[in-house]
Amino acid sequence: VTQLIYDVSMSLDGFTTGPNVRPEEPMGDGGEALHEWMAGRTDFHDRGGGTDAAHVDVRAELSERLGAVVVGRGTFDLGEQPWGDPPPFGVPVFVVTHRTRATEVKQGGTTYTFVIDGITAALDQARAAAAGKDVLILGGATVFQEYFRAGLVDELQIHLVPVLLHAGVRMLENLGDSNARLERTRVIESTSVTHLRFRVIR
Amino acid sequence: VTQLIYDVSMSLDGFTTGPNVRPEEPMGDGGEALHEWMAGRTDFHDRGGGTDAAHVDVRAELSERLGAVVVGRGTFDLGEQPWGDPPPFGVPVFVVTHRTRATEVKQGGTTYTFVIDGITAALDQARAAAAGKDVLILGGATVFQEYFRAGLVDELQIHLVPVLLHAGVRMLENLGDSNARLERTRVIESTSVTHLRFRVIR
Repeated sequence: VTQLIYDVSMSLDGFTTGPNVRPEEPMGDGGEALHEWMAGRTDFHDRGGGTDAAHVDVRAELSERLGAVVVGRGTFDLGEQPWGDPPPFGVPVFVVTHRTRATEVKQGGTTYTFVIDGITAALDQARAAAAGKDVLILGGATVFQEYFRAGLVDELQIHLVPVLLHAGVRMLENLGDSNARLERTRVIESTSVTHLRFRVIR
Repeated sequence: VTQLIYDVSMSLDGFTTGPNVRPEEPMGDGGEALHEWMAGRTDFHDRGGGTDAAHVDVRAELSERLGAVVVGRGTFDLGEQPWGDPPPFGVPVFVVTHRTRATEVKQGGTTYTFVIDGITAALDQARAAAAGKDVLILGGATVFQEYFRAGLVDELQIHLVPVLLHAGVRMLENLGDSNARLERTRVIESTSVTHLRFRVIR
């Protein structure tokens, strides 16, 4: 059954991007360090038990279950160029936005559909497109926080990266006054990064 | 060789105490949930691989290496009563404070010494008392942040608890503009709690 998952790399001090996000630096100042593990760059110091192979497993699992993506307009605008064609998704992507735009069909199975009637409508379309696979929320924390406040997020996967960004966009704030509880469902240790998975219980 | 370690339970959203800390609720609203694992209360939901035995190991290791404690006056004032006599430390405790007070000798090896000439002086006394064992910073994040900004913290041990407090005292802020990097040195998974250990590299 389709799960709505927010999968994100987070600094130890809680940021999903550094400060001063801009086209030349879409992850903000210092924020690129959050994604180094995905590129297989393992120049982190690590004396723990993690392996590089675990990086690969975590990414492979994600693609295997990936049915569709929802993303905010801010992330889309910053990402469209670097994602290129074919984009790295290979599934339908639904962009939550206020400004409409014609659907774009990219190579390799990625489509960009612009949804102007809110996060629930975007999720409904993504669920239908995912056909039983999972829907991933991608990008900075704003759209995730909207889905969380609406009680729609089923799982969090946090790739906890041992860096301090000191400023930027915080993942876990503006979550509303919900009494949502979290159940930790898995810990995977890869080189330097701790991959934590939680189920949201309401 | 003596290490200065900040050992603390932190909510997934980064708080070491909830809001509205007061004598009746020294951990703040909802903050008591951060310490449930220490009391062996394991009524967290957990479908991961953690065990209750790991809780015990983590606590035992800490006591074994414990040589002295430094603590802020705020934490001391809130803690003195609940800690009772004998207090749970069994080692010399140095209280960083602006108001002096006579040293108190408690049962079981705990002494409370009030240090009015700053965090470095308190650490020097704690190091001497620790005689090669470790010095632990206890309590809310303020005194830890002072030591971190001064470049004096060697290790962090974060007991990451899968709760959201939404507000309170954040652990990892006001850390100064240091370029300190973190090296993850260990991950232990106990029931619901993820015990993360980091070395601070400067």
